[in-house]
Amino acid sequence: MTTSSLHPTVAPDAPARPDGPLRGLKVLELGHFIAAPFCTRMLADQGADVIKVEARGGEPLRNWGLSSNGKSIIWSLHNRNKRCITLDMKNPAAQPAIEGLIRWADVVVENFRPGQLEKWGYGYEAMQTLNPRVILCRISGYGQDGPYHTRHSFGAVGEAMGGLRYLTGYPAEQTPLPPVRTGVSIGDDLSALYAVGGILAAVYERDVAGTGRGRQIDVALYEGVFSMLEGILPEYGTLGVVRDPQGSAMPTAVPSDTYRTADERWLVIAGNSDAIYKRLCKIIGREDMAEDPEYRTNSDRIRNRAKVDAAIATWVATVSAAEGDRILNDAGVPATRAYTVRDCAEDPHFRARDMIVEIDDPLIGKTLHPGIVPRFDANGAVGRIAWPGPDIGAHNEEVFGHDLGMSSDQINTMRKEGAV
Amino acid sequence: MTTSSLHPTVAPDAPARPDGPLRGLKVLELGHFIAAPFCTRMLADQGADVIKVEARGGEPLRNWGLSSNGKSIIWSLHNRNKRCITLDMKNPAAQPAIEGLIRWADVVVENFRPGQLEKWGYGYEAMQTLNPRVILCRISGYGQDGPYHTRHSFGAVGEAMGGLRYLTGYPAEQTPLPPVRTGVSIGDDLSALYAVGGILAAVYERDVAGTGRGRQIDVALYEGVFSMLEGILPEYGTLGVVRDPQGSAMPTAVPSDTYRTADERWLVIAGNSDAIYKRLCKIIGREDMAEDPEYRTNSDRIRNRAKVDAAIATWVATVSAAEGDRILNDAGVPATRAYTVRDCAEDPHFRARDMIVEIDDPLIGKTLHPGIVPRFDANGAVGRIAWPGPDIGAHNEEVFGHDLGMSSDQINTMRKEGAV
Repeated sequence: MTTSSLHPTVAPDAPARPDGPLRGLKVLELGHFIAAPFCTRMLADQGADVIKVEARGGEPLRNWGLSSNGKSIIWSLHNRNKRCITLDMKNPAAQPAIEGLIRWADVVVENFRPGQLEKWGYGYEAMQTLNPRVILCRISGYGQDGPYHTRHSFGAVGEAMGGLRYLTGYPAEQTPLPPVRTGVSIGDDLSALYAVGGILAAVYERDVAGTGRGRQIDVALYEGVFSMLEGILPEYGTLGVVRDPQGSAMPTAVPSDTYRTADERWLVIAGNSDAIYKRLCKIIGREDMAEDPEYRTNSDRIRNRAKVDAAIATWVATVSAAEGDRILNDAGVPATRAYTVRDCAEDPHFRARDMIVEIDDPLIGKTLHPGIVPRFDANGAVGRIAWPGPDIGAHNEEVFGHDLGMSSDQINTMRKEGAV
Repeated sequence: MTTSSLHPTVAPDAPARPDGPLRGLKVLELGHFIAAPFCTRMLADQGADVIKVEARGGEPLRNWGLSSNGKSIIWSLHNRNKRCITLDMKNPAAQPAIEGLIRWADVVVENFRPGQLEKWGYGYEAMQTLNPRVILCRISGYGQDGPYHTRHSFGAVGEAMGGLRYLTGYPAEQTPLPPVRTGVSIGDDLSALYAVGGILAAVYERDVAGTGRGRQIDVALYEGVFSMLEGILPEYGTLGVVRDPQGSAMPTAVPSDTYRTADERWLVIAGNSDAIYKRLCKIIGREDMAEDPEYRTNSDRIRNRAKVDAAIATWVATVSAAEGDRILNDAGVPATRAYTVRDCAEDPHFRARDMIVEIDDPLIGKTLHPGIVPRFDANGAVGRIAWPGPDIGAHNEEVFGHDLGMSSDQINTMRKEGAV
């Protein structure tokens, strides 16, 4: 394998279509906010043709977070590579277009509250009547059934109910502060990732295994979170042990923690293999601790965690974050400063791997997007950022006219009836 | 849609094979620890046939975390539904078996350091010579190229370099404590989820779009983390704003925070829509704040965050976590106590949705596993837990003899040479 064979081309002057291994897959998004839009964005990043339906005023993410020129900046990212159209799902005049889109789609992704599609008349049975091959992926806070499924939900609630919030904090004896929110919409993001996997598994079943039939997939945000708890549930189920929050440390590995540098930043050091630990001892000038039987194995070090961490902290307090990062990595000790977004944007490794892409967005101006994850080799189509999140209804004419084959008269009727 | 149509059958007396939409997909795992094993476990949970190769002594996860009967508990979970065999990748006598497995596989998943496969003689070019259709998914800390790709890495480092660690903490003025580790191996887990999506996209391209060719997929742990930063990079790229840690709160929505209950637990309340905020004001006996123009919209409340949070905290301090949870949800306010793993295991909603599965594991005894995520409707094959993580070499005879068609003599030769 040569290095260059793994480089995708993510050019700012990319041509007018998304591309990638999913080229040809047709996806209809009936989504809003994060979970469904992020799911379909990942599909579009890998080449799927995504048509996103918004209400006539645009979906709420268009008014979310920081803005530029009066336009939401996150919109630019989470709706890139999609074609955006407007339709009033409740308006009878929209029905021919909606039915046309359901017939067109391989996959429909939605994240309204359970029952909302049915209220509009487009539940899964109705969809299957129009298109027996359609795969419907439904993302919701609690799932489509079960005692809580009608509850209102937000990401924060799913993260806490799924068990992650409790674990992401300090032991009570260290601080009275509440557990920390993982600093991003991690619950929505995990459900979006599970949705991608579920959708493509259903496509495999339909088109490779060859059942020819669609499926309904039920992604519950709290379950995506819960399934991250790794050994914590089996450990409870076997031993009755309830995992408590551990602050900045790893419960099972020492040393693996976060230390304060001379320039008041944070350095994360993962010295938790015996060989790496020895190298680390040398760096911090504590070769005496490398051979001491009190610290030799991971379980020794777990027993003497406080002393190990204190020795490392003493050294880290004498170096800047950048120095510490360099010295440790040069010596083969896994370590890094805790990157801010500026650190990410300026880092040569991120740049070399096309993870920082300069975009000139007609709505918000010059900006940066993260690249396509994961990366595919260059022996076939690779993902690209063909365009940032489009304006409201930007693709109405193209989709209604070209993709659905509606006449100008039909489109005008929809407009007159307020359906578009 | 009827409620029951969404119920998969995850029975403890499940028959002897994994099942689900991915039935028929053949996956070879050359993995260890978390990222690759979790990826292939998700594929196996949905029905893929996963053969996992371990070194003769077993992979390190067999000695990780808490144990029962001297056996690792997390092993039971992350290697369920797989067939486990042993092979010494460096031993020439193992070569016929390894080559047979590469010919057998649709997909190979590995998470060794970049270059390790090549050292063994099984880089992607070698694999393609044996099987041009094979898809190779490589998971690593920094990716297969770029200036840092040869560095040692662990999950904690990828989480910090990807920008998540810095964000998961309190503002410096609130505490001198370092940012918190998200309480699970979130970096490994995210790369596993991206790997699942990438693999199935490559299968789509090969078998549905019909290129007939394999691809190489490069999943970097730090990039899976970085791609969670939602609007944070574009906001930096457009406005130069560096997002700082926000503790337990959401920066863009008020009220959405975590509050201390009378019984010293945590209640997460997401009252951040105008309608929900009004209902919340009524519950906490502060109807005066519902109509006050100081708090009416989300941006008003962001401006007066401290006063809104103080009013809610005053009420939460008077109720138990269970009471608060019930009262708020009955009133349509998204809220939950911060679930511990025991709360998850005992919750009727988790139980109703088959998220808590009782397993009798021959290695560790009675335990609990999380169910299959995401859930598929009952109009086709659904995932099940056919067996927990098997013992070392449990499927050697079956795989070498039945799947690869090796004779007893050939298998005995491998044993004699120490290759198995």
